[in-house]
Amino acid sequence: MAQWVYLYGPDRVDGRGDMKDLLGGKGAGLHEMARIGIPVPPGFTITTQACTAYFRTGGFPEGLEDQVREAVRILEGWTGKRFGGDPPLLVSVRSGAPISMPGMMDTVLNLGLNDQTVEALAKATDNPRFAWDSYRRFLEMFGDVVMGIPRQRFETLLEQAKETAGVQADADLDTAHLQKLVEAFKQVYAEEGKAFPQDPWEQLWAAIRAVFDSWNNPRAIAYRKIHDIPDHLGTAVNVVTMVFGNMGEDSGTGVAFTRNPATGEKELYAEYLPNAQGEDVVAGIRTPLKIDALRERFPEIYEELVRHAATLEEHYRDMLDLEFTVERGKLYFLQVRVGKRTARAMVKIAVDFVHEGKISREEALLRVDPYKVEELFHPMLDPAYDGEPVASGIPASPGAAVGKIALDAQTAQKMREQGERVVLVRPETSPDDIRGMAASEGILTARGGATSHAAVVSRGMGKPCVVGAEDLVIDEAVREIRIRGRDGLVLREGDWISIDGTTGKIFAGQVPTLPPSPDFPEFVELLSWADEFRRLRVRANADTPEDARRARDFGAEGIGLARTEHMFFEGERIYAMQEMILADTPEARRKALAKLLPYQKEDFKGLLRAMDGLPVTIRTLDPPLHEFLPKEPEAQKALAERLGVPVEKVAERVEALKELNPMLGFRGVRLGLLYPEITEMQARAMLEAACEVQAEGVDVHLEIMIPLVSTAEELRRQRALVEEVAERVFQEKGVRVPFKVGTMIEIPRAALTADEIARVAEFFSFGTNDLTQTTFGFSRDDVGKFLPYYVEQGILPHDPFQRLDARGVGQLVAMATERGKATRPDLKVGICGEHGGDPDSVLFFHRAGLDYVSCSPFRVPVARLAAGRAALLDRTT
Amino acid sequence: MAQWVYLYGPDRVDGRGDMKDLLGGKGAGLHEMARIGIPVPPGFTITTQACTAYFRTGGFPEGLEDQVREAVRILEGWTGKRFGGDPPLLVSVRSGAPISMPGMMDTVLNLGLNDQTVEALAKATDNPRFAWDSYRRFLEMFGDVVMGIPRQRFETLLEQAKETAGVQADADLDTAHLQKLVEAFKQVYAEEGKAFPQDPWEQLWAAIRAVFDSWNNPRAIAYRKIHDIPDHLGTAVNVVTMVFGNMGEDSGTGVAFTRNPATGEKELYAEYLPNAQGEDVVAGIRTPLKIDALRERFPEIYEELVRHAATLEEHYRDMLDLEFTVERGKLYFLQVRVGKRTARAMVKIAVDFVHEGKISREEALLRVDPYKVEELFHPMLDPAYDGEPVASGIPASPGAAVGKIALDAQTAQKMREQGERVVLVRPETSPDDIRGMAASEGILTARGGATSHAAVVSRGMGKPCVVGAEDLVIDEAVREIRIRGRDGLVLREGDWISIDGTTGKIFAGQVPTLPPSPDFPEFVELLSWADEFRRLRVRANADTPEDARRARDFGAEGIGLARTEHMFFEGERIYAMQEMILADTPEARRKALAKLLPYQKEDFKGLLRAMDGLPVTIRTLDPPLHEFLPKEPEAQKALAERLGVPVEKVAERVEALKELNPMLGFRGVRLGLLYPEITEMQARAMLEAACEVQAEGVDVHLEIMIPLVSTAEELRRQRALVEEVAERVFQEKGVRVPFKVGTMIEIPRAALTADEIARVAEFFSFGTNDLTQTTFGFSRDDVGKFLPYYVEQGILPHDPFQRLDARGVGQLVAMATERGKATRPDLKVGICGEHGGDPDSVLFFHRAGLDYVSCSPFRVPVARLAAGRAALLDRTT
Repeated sequence: MAQWVYLYGPDRVDGRGDMKDLLGGKGAGLHEMARIGIPVPPGFTITTQACTAYFRTGGFPEGLEDQVREAVRILEGWTGKRFGGDPPLLVSVRSGAPISMPGMMDTVLNLGLNDQTVEALAKATDNPRFAWDSYRRFLEMFGDVVMGIPRQRFETLLEQAKETAGVQADADLDTAHLQKLVEAFKQVYAEEGKAFPQDPWEQLWAAIRAVFDSWNNPRAIAYRKIHDIPDHLGTAVNVVTMVFGNMGEDSGTGVAFTRNPATGEKELYAEYLPNAQGEDVVAGIRTPLKIDALRERFPEIYEELVRHAATLEEHYRDMLDLEFTVERGKLYFLQVRVGKRTARAMVKIAVDFVHEGKISREEALLRVDPYKVEELFHPMLDPAYDGEPVASGIPASPGAAVGKIALDAQTAQKMREQGERVVLVRPETSPDDIRGMAASEGILTARGGATSHAAVVSRGMGKPCVVGAEDLVIDEAVREIRIRGRDGLVLREGDWISIDGTTGKIFAGQVPTLPPSPDFPEFVELLSWADEFRRLRVRANADTPEDARRARDFGAEGIGLARTEHMFFEGERIYAMQEMILADTPEARRKALAKLLPYQKEDFKGLLRAMDGLPVTIRTLDPPLHEFLPKEPEAQKALAERLGVPVEKVAERVEALKELNPMLGFRGVRLGLLYPEITEMQARAMLEAACEVQAEGVDVHLEIMIPLVSTAEELRRQRALVEEVAERVFQEKGVRVPFKVGTMIEIPRAALTADEIARVAEFFSFGTNDLTQTTFGFSRDDVGKFLPYYVEQGILPHDPFQRLDARGVGQLVAMATERGKATRPDLKVGICGEHGGDPDSVLFFHRAGLDYVSCSPFRVPVARLAAGRAALLDRTT
Repeated sequence: MAQWVYLYGPDRVDGRGDMKDLLGGKGAGLHEMARIGIPVPPGFTITTQACTAYFRTGGFPEGLEDQVREAVRILEGWTGKRFGGDPPLLVSVRSGAPISMPGMMDTVLNLGLNDQTVEALAKATDNPRFAWDSYRRFLEMFGDVVMGIPRQRFETLLEQAKETAGVQADADLDTAHLQKLVEAFKQVYAEEGKAFPQDPWEQLWAAIRAVFDSWNNPRAIAYRKIHDIPDHLGTAVNVVTMVFGNMGEDSGTGVAFTRNPATGEKELYAEYLPNAQGEDVVAGIRTPLKIDALRERFPEIYEELVRHAATLEEHYRDMLDLEFTVERGKLYFLQVRVGKRTARAMVKIAVDFVHEGKISREEALLRVDPYKVEELFHPMLDPAYDGEPVASGIPASPGAAVGKIALDAQTAQKMREQGERVVLVRPETSPDDIRGMAASEGILTARGGATSHAAVVSRGMGKPCVVGAEDLVIDEAVREIRIRGRDGLVLREGDWISIDGTTGKIFAGQVPTLPPSPDFPEFVELLSWADEFRRLRVRANADTPEDARRARDFGAEGIGLARTEHMFFEGERIYAMQEMILADTPEARRKALAKLLPYQKEDFKGLLRAMDGLPVTIRTLDPPLHEFLPKEPEAQKALAERLGVPVEKVAERVEALKELNPMLGFRGVRLGLLYPEITEMQARAMLEAACEVQAEGVDVHLEIMIPLVSTAEELRRQRALVEEVAERVFQEKGVRVPFKVGTMIEIPRAALTADEIARVAEFFSFGTNDLTQTTFGFSRDDVGKFLPYYVEQGILPHDPFQRLDARGVGQLVAMATERGKATRPDLKVGICGEHGGDPDSVLFFHRAGLDYVSCSPFRVPVARLAAGRAALLDRTT
């Protein structure tokens, strides 16, 4: 016969804290506390196996009822009370799953009360009001959570009773009122066609059944699906002797954290409510007091609380969240669990625990959630704020931004100059908007996905960003935003708006925020531990010397991606670029390109200097040329005048360069092959820069990267061209610098033919943004139309642009790494897509055998942490 | 010592016809003819191994010179002439590679002549004019092809000589003129600093070296690169005793095909030129006579020619192309090779040979080039036409079209109504242009690739099409086309234009064409043999009952792809579609969709009836919704009025649906998931149609196909929806019909996760168009900007949209087939992309283990043939 029931009490404890699978989290905590001598009200736990057996057969498994009866008998012995007798034994019944899971049945208190035992309770406590109030509460809870009677029906009667009695608070109802209320509540049962069981055993069986059944209610099922919790686990049921915090001024109830959950400071952080039951706190009827109230009035109880809390923390080796009740001067603990905390507290507590000798550094790293760490780098919406968002989009760059709405980049700049804080709101952004974005607190777009222009640039700038908020109708003509499905709601340019780049929520008005705080000593120390353990190197994607320096400050070990095209948009450079695009012959293109050369060279020198001694990977031109030409007739006219060509020619070239799917069009290596003079100029700028800074004493590690390769032959030709230029430059300069030529792997065909490509490439860098686009057939700019629905509905577990799709895209990453290294064992393999800063993806890259990840400068610390954790996870699993 | 020299003559033949690798094609033919008793002038062949040894060491290999001297001595014995003596032995020297290869050194005739032997030749032939003319010719040829003196220098002197002599033709120059010319020619050598070698041995060594060297001239290298001929093969050298067709009226030269190369008729097809050498024919100086001229004047020689031709054809078991010379009444054969022929002749000869018992049916099938067979289905440009194209693009649908230019679809229709033949010329086409395309002889676009809208629709219609002619500047305002790089060349609307969809060439004016002729009995018979051998089934892509019937006539065994969206553009249907797209709620969408249901059902019934007994695969809605809405404000206004909604709403929806990369956007299964009511309606239409035609007695094999799936979960949900609808329909109708639910595999991720998807899919159909787009990152609409360059430059061997990229895309096809069948052994796997009609791709699909291919109706016969050949090729290799 299986043991379905685990008992704990003064002289017997069946369970242990590590039996969460069998006893659920709550049950395991109660047994463990009992085991180590923490005062808990005695009780028993019905196992999760009983629950799964119940689902298998549709009824209680054989022996369960007998074991429960036996357990109740023992409780009777321990407490000197009788279940259904005098003095009456009352119990609470609660669900407790192995993994904490909202949505299931929570609690029934005071089970065991009926028309007889209420009288016995009144007598035993000498407190009829307390007895009838307890009965009233039980009828309401049992009706609601066990019998499925709408709670509102009871609440209405309670309100009427207070009105009739002319009182404000529940507590002001006297025994007679409460007795009438009990009658009225029983009438509700009758009206609902559900008899209230007077037999405590029937109450108990029904409550146990209700807990089991709640495992399969729709909210619980949905929660499990979203959080990948297996359906077969089942829930345990905890039946615990009632203790009462509402038996007078020497009673009370409270919640305690063993350390400050906001700051991580080592101090008991607790609240206390005298003469109250736990649900009074939850219901918010009364405001709890600081724990000092307890210390002042009952110093011994306070000392006992402090002592037990310390024992528990020591025992559990983590910061804990404790529930306790004081019944007539006696302290009981009702629940223990690991406490939730802010990112800052998470880090400080983990590091403090190491210093206190409680856990190892490895354990500290594994305890820290690297996703949560991102919060440190951004202001966050005040968690206490509970306003309704007006719309939502895809969370693209974390953190909260509050500012006045600007509907175009110029307005944003102007408002900023006038000292305003601005949020730029656009249908989508383009390179023209960069300055406006830089002037804004945050960016909000109606279109685009997690790797759209707005998203990528925002992350690079470390600015909060929400994209693909498809419900926004941005009317630039009348300078306002309407919201689909919210008739009449209009946000005007200049109105306040708040966006949360961590959740994607958008609020009208100014929402309170908390400031970022990344550089406290514990975090610095934690990162240094991660660095010791990790195998993966961490580089940054940086296009400017300033970015490069910032990245290095954050611990970047090189640049994994410098996008040369970003450099073409600044000031005069765009004119030379446009002249190049409008040129008809290679010679004319070379002439225009020659004007760009000095700019590029200066940029590259800055990057190489900032990364002295570390590798710098520079990518040749990637975007389609039409991105550099103006679309508007006015701007085309201005361009024509500047270059002294007919406006028709400009218009014709714009038309000729138009593409239906620019993502899959004439860009990347394709440009470099048809216009070799572009690659020639860029290679020359890189190599001249390298020679010149080497002469200054800089230790140069230049890596030239060719984008969008799909065949080995493309790379072979570009590499030959680069090497030809290198020889010329080295001859001219009279020195040589070491350099490598490699390629992005961002097209499925490149991954599939990585063995061939590795014959030509000295390094691979996965462009997982584009690789995700092509592997899924998802345009990152258009994905807002369906991807949020996919994630919400569980068609995809995550946004694959934020977390690498290991099953699909990951296959290509692993295949290319393996095939590439098989061809060329010393092939260096990295990744420079957005996933380089995503902790789960970093773990995947670690396991796939990559050499480094590269991400936005702001994400470097998170990547370092994730890489350290990856090495440890790999060690332990 | 290696045998470098292979001799053939009256009493010794060293080589054989199967020694092409060693003796080259020409040499092997000469040896084989000698072996079987065909009269050939004796000679010898220097092997390809001698050539490769020459390249290895930079000089003649040891023993070569001795063996040549010995061979010449034997020729002297056979002919009774002496090399450099009296009567003089003269020889021709020609290259001959294992694989026929233009661009190499062709021929030096009359080698052995010098100032002495010319006199001896005059004496021996009693014909001084002949002797000096031969010497003059030798000096010119030797100077040109061996010494590298520009031929023009000799030609100029010849022209001057004729002028001085006051004659028109070369033949009118007398001995004295020719002697002067010989002196002048020798002077040219002197002026070029190159002494003319009087020693015949020196002449011979120089000529052999020149042949060897010509293997590595740039034209030959380029040709080998393009045609994948290995560089290490080397060329043989044929040294053959001269025979002269220009020794009087009883001499002559000719070319004979053993069957008619245009029609395949069994008849000797030959031309003859009396008193002439071969190169006179080639130079086009005189027009050759019909072979009847020979029959009339020298019936015995004619009979001998016929007899030997028949012997050779019997021996070689193929139609042959023969060169012959008659010297003073004696017939010699100088060359034998397999004859080039038209597609029609190719088919007829192969089938006739089977009937004549010469070859097996398997051999006949393997001899037929399935690419060439396509010619049968389209008018072709007259091969004799040698005009210059004004531009070129990507050949997208084969055949020639000649018509007057129409610059929009409406004009095309109007011109057609007035009885004009029209070629529609557009920047690109859209569904709006379909009627205009149907009214045109052919379609030409400035943008797009081999699977752009224009290309796909043209192939479906069987109309010639050239796309991506990027040099065309189509100016709709002034109704003319300018051509980039061809200043001043303007084609106006209404001007004649000719396009060749087989080569991509575009000609101004009317180019003569030959009509198509596909249904002659030999072709029908050949296809029936292919059907016997093939394992692959062949289906057609067809959207209408008419297409389906036509496909069935061509031998299609079902429909592999019916695109439902094409049905939405006709007449009233588009209005209901637009109403659906503008609807705000599922209910409003359902209401609009209900209007489409009867149309769809009727279409489906037609398809199912036309394919009674055969499978019909119908795909749910695939294209993005914006394709169904008008872009122009005027049209938007009209739409708004028709639907009774504000025009702003239409504009807003158009804006909301706008996509940067529609190819990777909100389409396919993504639509079906977010708007399940679309799939619901389409599934209902299919299943109701199936029930209703089954009641008529039609044998229904319905396959419902979900496009653009990238995860198994997408398909799981759509399949559940389809099955739910099916149950409802079957209940309503009181009958059941069998049906399958499957998916397109057209996204790399679907191929990578085919094992998971096969758990849900009952069949796979590769959409190789989209799969090629995503695997390469090539947009088929934009690829015209670089793909032609890629193919021209050999970066890619073929346009991957026309011939499946086996190395990259093929990996995904093979992987998905294998993984899919591993999960579900009875999974049916087909392909419905354009590659389904491409013979090489069909071979790949056969080998990858697919069950069927599906292609345009017009390509079904070619696919059947290719599938039959694939089975045979697999058997023999």
